[in-house]
Amino acid sequence: MSNALQSPPHRAVVEHLVRQQVYARLGKPLPRSAASPNPLVVNVSARHCHLTPEAVEALFGKGHQLQVHKWLYQEGQFAAKETLTLIGPRSRVISNLRILGPCRNLNQVELAYTDGIALGFELPHRISGDIKGTLGCMLMGPAGFFEMEQGVIRAMRHVHMHPTDAEYFGVKAGESMKLKIGGEAGLILDKMLCRVDPAFKLEVHIDTDEGNACNLQPDTPCELIK
Amino acid sequence: MSNALQSPPHRAVVEHLVRQQVYARLGKPLPRSAASPNPLVVNVSARHCHLTPEAVEALFGKGHQLQVHKWLYQEGQFAAKETLTLIGPRSRVISNLRILGPCRNLNQVELAYTDGIALGFELPHRISGDIKGTLGCMLMGPAGFFEMEQGVIRAMRHVHMHPTDAEYFGVKAGESMKLKIGGEAGLILDKMLCRVDPAFKLEVHIDTDEGNACNLQPDTPCELIK
Repeated sequence: MSNALQSPPHRAVVEHLVRQQVYARLGKPLPRSAASPNPLVVNVSARHCHLTPEAVEALFGKGHQLQVHKWLYQEGQFAAKETLTLIGPRSRVISNLRILGPCRNLNQVELAYTDGIALGFELPHRISGDIKGTLGCMLMGPAGFFEMEQGVIRAMRHVHMHPTDAEYFGVKAGESMKLKIGGEAGLILDKMLCRVDPAFKLEVHIDTDEGNACNLQPDTPCELIK
Repeated sequence: MSNALQSPPHRAVVEHLVRQQVYARLGKPLPRSAASPNPLVVNVSARHCHLTPEAVEALFGKGHQLQVHKWLYQEGQFAAKETLTLIGPRSRVISNLRILGPCRNLNQVELAYTDGIALGFELPHRISGDIKGTLGCMLMGPAGFFEMEQGVIRAMRHVHMHPTDAEYFGVKAGESMKLKIGGEAGLILDKMLCRVDPAFKLEVHIDTDEGNACNLQPDTPCELIK
């Protein structure tokens, strides 16, 4: 039915499997990086928004359902084919803002700090979902406008974890870890919020500012540190 | 003669002086952060270029001298009043590119990785001055064009140090340090190149991607670590 892109496995997933197989064949003990139950996937989240069904209808028409453009690493999450135009509080515009599906019970726009500079206001730095008291914006779609009263944020860097990952790393939901990123522009990101759920696969989400600061590439080594 | 902006002292400079005075009055020993011979100033370098006198003449007219818009922290360095238009290899444009003075003996454009994405090519990550084999661009000024054969880079993060600073931190020119940046989006920047010269004042230069990744503000605590 759908011709949505099913992404090939993430490089980190393939590496993890190959590393475990190679050590098993050699009969050698696994080094710590290969002994973790799951591969560490680090993805850069470009700016995007989450919408309620009501917002989707206002923007794209009565009864409209978001269509899958590309499946994401977290089960059931997808980048939608639909994009929006965002009009900020100073009438500056961001075009082609990607919508992530499925719909949620709140409207939230997640931008990088660089986007905030382009829009001319300072983004509050929040845990996703914690949008109380933040600025809103106007969204424009092909079928109409939708005014978001609040919800334009910079999302805090975070790591999705299955409970087995949390146990392996010795952390609990709401605690923080660090992410060490190698390469010639290497850095260590502090205060990486742990989000733990049986539905989650181990995945770090950083934004484009963070990804560009360290020039994160598919083969850049990454390590989670407590 | 000049109405150039003489910046007020950097917050880090004032803090350092006050801290030293307060501890002296209290007759207490200085904590390590206050015991350093010089304050640590961390500045974000927005995209800019350095030009030869020949390039300045081609762009702004015969005999043109760069005018001071604002003095920078390093002695004698300034942001010029003059700006340029840069035309990249895929005909994409960056307007209002600031020139830093005084003139040098090479032409170099320093951009953030985000700018490279906007221009549509991957910036080489280089130590300032090491431009061999890099891509060039076309520069456009009010009096004409100037073709740079090479020299469009992302400059590696670095710290300017007086020899007394290098001695205090126990590092030599060409070695690396780390910069720990606090705050709620805190991080540690690895591979901060040490540049040592008797003419230098202690100052870290990071680019806008790095500054935005950690939301660096004037009051964000920063610490150099070996």
